[in-house]
Amino acid sequence: MTGSVDLNADMGESFGPWKMGDDAALLEIVTSANIACGFHAGDPDVMAATMRTARDHGVGIGAHPGFADLQGFGRRRLALAHESLQNAIRYQLGAAQGMARSLGTRVRHLKLHGALSNMASEDEALARRCYEAALTVDPDIIVMVLAATAQERAVRDLGCNWVGEIFADRAYNDDGTLVDRSRPGAVIHDAAAAGARILEMVREGAIITISGKRIPAAIGTICLHGDTPGAVDLARAVRDSLSAGGIRIAQFGPGGRKAPYQPT
Amino acid sequence: MTGSVDLNADMGESFGPWKMGDDAALLEIVTSANIACGFHAGDPDVMAATMRTARDHGVGIGAHPGFADLQGFGRRRLALAHESLQNAIRYQLGAAQGMARSLGTRVRHLKLHGALSNMASEDEALARRCYEAALTVDPDIIVMVLAATAQERAVRDLGCNWVGEIFADRAYNDDGTLVDRSRPGAVIHDAAAAGARILEMVREGAIITISGKRIPAAIGTICLHGDTPGAVDLARAVRDSLSAGGIRIAQFGPGGRKAPYQPT
Amino acid sequence: MTGSVDLNADMGESFGPWKMGDDAALLEIVTSANIACGFHAGDPDVMAATMRTARDHGVGIGAHPGFADLQGFGRRRLALAHESLQNAIRYQLGAAQGMARSLGTRVRHLKLHGALSNMASEDEALARRCYEAALTVDPDIIVMVLAATAQERAVRDLGCNWVGEIFADRAYNDDGTLVDRSRPGAVIHDAAAAGARILEMVREGAIITISGKRIPAAIGTICLHGDTPGAVDLARAVRDSLSAGGIRIAQFGPGGRKAPYQPT
Amino acid sequence: MTGSVDLNADMGESFGPWKMGDDAALLEIVTSANIACGFHAGDPDVMAATMRTARDHGVGIGAHPGFADLQGFGRRRLALAHESLQNAIRYQLGAAQGMARSLGTRVRHLKLHGALSNMASEDEALARRCYEAALTVDPDIIVMVLAATAQERAVRDLGCNWVGEIFADRAYNDDGTLVDRSRPGAVIHDAAAAGARILEMVREGAIITISGKRIPAAIGTICLHGDTPGAVDLARAVRDSLSAGGIRIAQFGPGGRKAPYQPT
Repeated sequence: MTGSVDLNADMGESFGPWKMGDDAALLEIVTSANIACGFHAGDPDVMAATMRTARDHGVGIGAHPGFADLQGFGRRRLALAHESLQNAIRYQLGAAQGMARSLGTRVRHLKLHGALSNMASEDEALARRCYEAALTVDPDIIVMVLAATAQERAVRDLGCNWVGEIFADRAYNDDGTLVDRSRPGAVIHDAAAAGARILEMVREGAIITISGKRIPAAIGTICLHGDTPGAVDLARAVRDSLSAGGIRIAQFGPGGRKAPYQPT
Repeated sequence: MTGSVDLNADMGESFGPWKMGDDAALLEIVTSANIACGFHAGDPDVMAATMRTARDHGVGIGAHPGFADLQGFGRRRLALAHESLQNAIRYQLGAAQGMARSLGTRVRHLKLHGALSNMASEDEALARRCYEAALTVDPDIIVMVLAATAQERAVRDLGCNWVGEIFADRAYNDDGTLVDRSRPGAVIHDAAAAGARILEMVREGAIITISGKRIPAAIGTICLHGDTPGAVDLARAVRDSLSAGGIRIAQFGPGGRKAPYQPT
Repeated sequence: MTGSVDLNADMGESFGPWKMGDDAALLEIVTSANIACGFHAGDPDVMAATMRTARDHGVGIGAHPGFADLQGFGRRRLALAHESLQNAIRYQLGAAQGMARSLGTRVRHLKLHGALSNMASEDEALARRCYEAALTVDPDIIVMVLAATAQERAVRDLGCNWVGEIFADRAYNDDGTLVDRSRPGAVIHDAAAAGARILEMVREGAIITISGKRIPAAIGTICLHGDTPGAVDLARAVRDSLSAGGIRIAQFGPGGRKAPYQPT
Repeated sequence: MTGSVDLNADMGESFGPWKMGDDAALLEIVTSANIACGFHAGDPDVMAATMRTARDHGVGIGAHPGFADLQGFGRRRLALAHESLQNAIRYQLGAAQGMARSLGTRVRHLKLHGALSNMASEDEALARRCYEAALTVDPDIIVMVLAATAQERAVRDLGCNWVGEIFADRAYNDDGTLVDRSRPGAVIHDAAAAGARILEMVREGAIITISGKRIPAAIGTICLHGDTPGAVDLARAVRDSLSAGGIRIAQFGPGGRKAPYQPT
């Protein structure tokens, strides 16, 4: 069989004197980095340092815009008018592009953060407005979406470049939503189990739910985390499992929408 | 005789629910707009609205970065490391560019704001670092500098595109610095007098100081204000005086450094 | 007949270089001032200046906490955990008290701002948590509530000092909620009509709805605005109408809950 | 011999999702906590949690105001007008007091943070304005000052309650200033050496400089750090050394100015 998949992680989430995550370890594992743009995390110094390191590792750079809520880390829902949301995305994406250009590199993709991503995964109109805003800044940008949600419906309808994402460490309900963190089994901590499970999903081209159901999905990238030592170990296990299973680890292509990953 | 000069003004200095300045009136007068980038004033919504109107008036769009100090409006000196200053400028310029691209236009020039501009007018090394940061984002950007200050020395040394600026409503000391606002005559309120004085300076290619001394200067643009009704009247008088005197009002060219304004 | 009523207005809503409202004019009209605490508007300098003037006019000082969202002026709903909301209120109230003490005066009352107030008017549990937080800081504080909403139910249940408020310039639906601003007649611009209407409501001890229905209500204070010249005129007309109608204009007492205003 | 000394540390310097320092470990060691007030670090949730734990440990609570510069952690100099500085201190102290009252405790002392403290240690007029602002909020507050600097001269002149502080882990020049961090020996990492040195200073009632010179000083409290495991070990070693040397570890009294620590 042939096939490849991208591995991504959120990065550049430090702020001023405060550190977060083990970006150095993750950059040895992932192929794409979603870099905070200063609204929910990150600041111009953190962005520059993170992009420079990502560039030096050949890791694809993505803008990761969120709500302007540092204290809440962009995880609290904020009722913004669509127009304001669009301008906030244009601004953050532009800032990331400027920083990337100054480092001789560029922003390849965009992924929404936190509560904004949650809202967009439930509300196709909102997702569409967010992505349209990004596409007016860069019509070629690759939009990273939560597979099988309103985010995916929005990009399919827009006809833009996109790539579908699943989580390495979260269980899925039968309707494709994530199992709530308060439920047992919602978060997967067993690195070996996570690796085997993700390999299976990528091979089958489907999300495998907590009950064993298959939801066909265009899986172009796997979301990994690095905020705890266990998370980094799990990320490494997922990468190793995919490689051992014959899946090539590689950045999604510019035409992400046409061939994210097709199981053979 | 022949010759042309640009007229510029700071704009987009509203924030959230708070309005500042009469941008609509100024856009009928100026040929270049210095648009706040969200750190000392402006927000993504204000930036978008201001850029859209400037574009529709054919007014050149500039990024106007400042210190991240909304309460102080970027007018209080902040001791930033040069590296942090550079990243703050890359970020703000990039954000402005993203916003401009989404509106089908672009950022032509960059002008430092407030305390940051004051510091750069006294410290050539700091000015140089600021402009270098902007030039790594866009090597063709036109840097607007306070004529006959360390800012001008920095751009001459860098060899980048630049344009020199004088103030329509401020008196100059014999060393080319501005007369302190606490001194009598420091701020010019008489519209007719301001118009005649600026015409004379542009014709002579020199700053005329409070004592009548001439300081040869490459005057490519005149800074106007719009924060009071009187300021708008003065701005209009300066424009009318220049036009009546045979000076063409036009945007500085991309090769600002080669021919800002040469009196014949 | 006898009776008195308080007049209140939001104040201190300037921020840094940006001005908002005509506080000087309002302070000649109102008996209580709700002063922004720096989260949605106001800053330490604005708070100090506003409190000093309110104190000099003998106007009662209130803390007016809101969401930490300057750009949105606290008018956008933010999904905060109750515990975070409580700490945000403790912090803002404490800051206001410190500022008041330094000026030889004190904070008499508390009123929620914007989206936070809207949420509390619909959700008694949330209102209760907000007021409990304030009462742990000052058990004697007088809580200003939107009459006949979940806010009033919360203070009645808590048994704290409180005063009920109605709006001078907004029409009411038959269920006691405000007519949506998009509907005709929602906002009252006619100063004379507003004055007559408020006098009638205070005399009857009832909110008079847009259909003419009476909702009995403990009306202790009337909310006025000062953000436009017309608003100040309307505020003055309401005061004059009440005075002419024999209603005394006076601050609500410390035992607001026992006798806000009882029509005879 | 008899005598006692206080041990203090900066705390509550986390912000939103970002953690800083090992407050739990330090609270077992110190007798006074300087708690960030939300401008340079801390947020209402962090303040509440930190104060609650300090209260439960019987540790004295202090307000630790700084510049409103989260990204710079209050360590970058900002040119504020004295009046603005005073209002910023009133605001932060008031917020801390409100939070403390809601937890059934109170703010005993005040210590300036970062660049603001550095500026006040060089500029007696600025220090005086800062402390006057705090004293208008609470005339009994105990001001913690860097011993033998302009801060100490300011409180002696004001005649307020105060306590003098020295650093456990920093070397001193012969003029009482700190050895610059770039110089060898500036920061003391050897826990045993730090313990012995502080015991000697407290016994002699003098700062012992890097050359061995004695500068008589009213040493009422020792500043400890907890941002690294080594720092916590050093803090513990200082406490143990003082105890073993017969110095009682106890909070400075309310009349700090009269008897900070007097060697016998």
